[in-house]
Amino acid sequence: MGPRDGFQNEPEVIATADKLALIELLGRAGLKRIEVTSLVRPDVVPQLADAEQVLEALRLPADVSVSVLVPNERGLERALAHRARIQEINGFLSASETHNQMNVSRSIEDSLAGLERTFATAAAEGLRCEGVISTAFGCPYEGRVPPARVLAIATRLHAAGAQEVAFGDTTGMANPVQVREFFRAARETLPGAELTAHFHNTRGQGLANVLAALEVGVESFESSFGELGGCPVPAGATGNIATEDLVSMLHEMGIATGVDLAALIEAAAAAQAVLDRPLGSHVLTAGQIEWG
Amino acid sequence: MGPRDGFQNEPEVIATADKLALIELLGRAGLKRIEVTSLVRPDVVPQLADAEQVLEALRLPADVSVSVLVPNERGLERALAHRARIQEINGFLSASETHNQMNVSRSIEDSLAGLERTFATAAAEGLRCEGVISTAFGCPYEGRVPPARVLAIATRLHAAGAQEVAFGDTTGMANPVQVREFFRAARETLPGAELTAHFHNTRGQGLANVLAALEVGVESFESSFGELGGCPVPAGATGNIATEDLVSMLHEMGIATGVDLAALIEAAAAAQAVLDRPLGSHVLTAGQIEWG
Repeated sequence: MGPRDGFQNEPEVIATADKLALIELLGRAGLKRIEVTSLVRPDVVPQLADAEQVLEALRLPADVSVSVLVPNERGLERALAHRARIQEINGFLSASETHNQMNVSRSIEDSLAGLERTFATAAAEGLRCEGVISTAFGCPYEGRVPPARVLAIATRLHAAGAQEVAFGDTTGMANPVQVREFFRAARETLPGAELTAHFHNTRGQGLANVLAALEVGVESFESSFGELGGCPVPAGATGNIATEDLVSMLHEMGIATGVDLAALIEAAAAAQAVLDRPLGSHVLTAGQIEWG
Repeated sequence: MGPRDGFQNEPEVIATADKLALIELLGRAGLKRIEVTSLVRPDVVPQLADAEQVLEALRLPADVSVSVLVPNERGLERALAHRARIQEINGFLSASETHNQMNVSRSIEDSLAGLERTFATAAAEGLRCEGVISTAFGCPYEGRVPPARVLAIATRLHAAGAQEVAFGDTTGMANPVQVREFFRAARETLPGAELTAHFHNTRGQGLANVLAALEVGVESFESSFGELGGCPVPAGATGNIATEDLVSMLHEMGIATGVDLAALIEAAAAAQAVLDRPLGSHVLTAGQIEWG
């Protein structure tokens, strides 16, 4: 989700041509699903005001699934005006009532009702739907978030047409023991859904949580090239796990991803050049392991 | 090992009074074993030229085991002149012939012979001995390092009197699958030794490797407050895992450490103030998780 979450969280607006070049580098690196932008209100997120231009101009290999974040039904309408350029939409809400209110000024129930309408419309248009649940492992305002509540939300999203449900550790509160227990329960509750782990590296534990999730059968992870984006709580903290760090660990463990790590590092290096500041990704700095 | 490995790797020399204050903060945070300095040649490592002053002036709780790194028999002689101030010595070598030559200009066999004499003398003085094996999971010059070679070295060190053997991922090449296999074999080979994992976070995988080691029964980890020190290969890469990040993950997993995390973060913050640059530790920036 680097092009969406990453570009959105930069203080400056990245030029559309730079965005296109970076996304295309990700496509050439072999990533098969890329969240390229979000159809949010340009006055709220000026960083993504060029969403439609990005969608229309983007050139990616045919086997790459282009996904966009849609914050609401108005966002879906905008996405559908570019239906041919999109394979997937992501809709989100928070598992914490307080966080959801602060993030989108709505109750969880209202968000769910909106997502049910959104996914129904999107599915009727043949779009794949992903539901993303933030603060699934803990909330900076409410503290513990009951797994039963998270799974009840996930069940509603899946029933509404989300083939995939992602569970976000939005402010980096998850630990491996919790992750194992949570995804074991999620697999039992949602046998038919693709379950995705969305971890942050806020306290350095991002890849440990990936390992824990792998151990209980999770095969889908969200990440961001260069370690761009994520929720910096508090300010200065790191957010998303870096795609390069994730891919490096998986490859070293003997898990194939189809991603060309060297090409992915090039994409992150290009992002670093565009943003003109050191990015947090470890493998970007340390390079690929050379076994000689 | 922050006070030794961390202070040694800073470009400037940290004032002795600052070192003492920081080490004493670590002691107050509940760490029970602290590598406080190294008895290296002051012309080679001027950053630790005050090793004897640190040892004599240090005030730590009675239950803290003070450990020093001794690079050779001359270092042990210097340590023994302050015998009453020390509970433990650490001696090291590399599992890679090339790395050992580059690091200490000796063959592995010569290093081992020296360590055997060093440990014999130290043990006769009632000191606890730890043998540290660098590049145990991979070498930047030789690539793969056969586990059988590492375990043969560990067996020699244990036979020579090392109650504890630490295995270092000196340049961050280890992955969780390798770590699990390695420590399973090490436990079988060395049933009587304390086996310690010394991981670096070079590619963001430090705590994932900790998790893998925990899973096969490892209970002893080396780390550095603030993420100080470690081997920056290439330049700019991060080194040791941060003690705060490690303790945070362990506590969140329900594993007691006896460490007061808030006090530990204070020690890392004090180090950051002394060094006057942002340190790499994640928990230092993000803070302890607040469950409310």
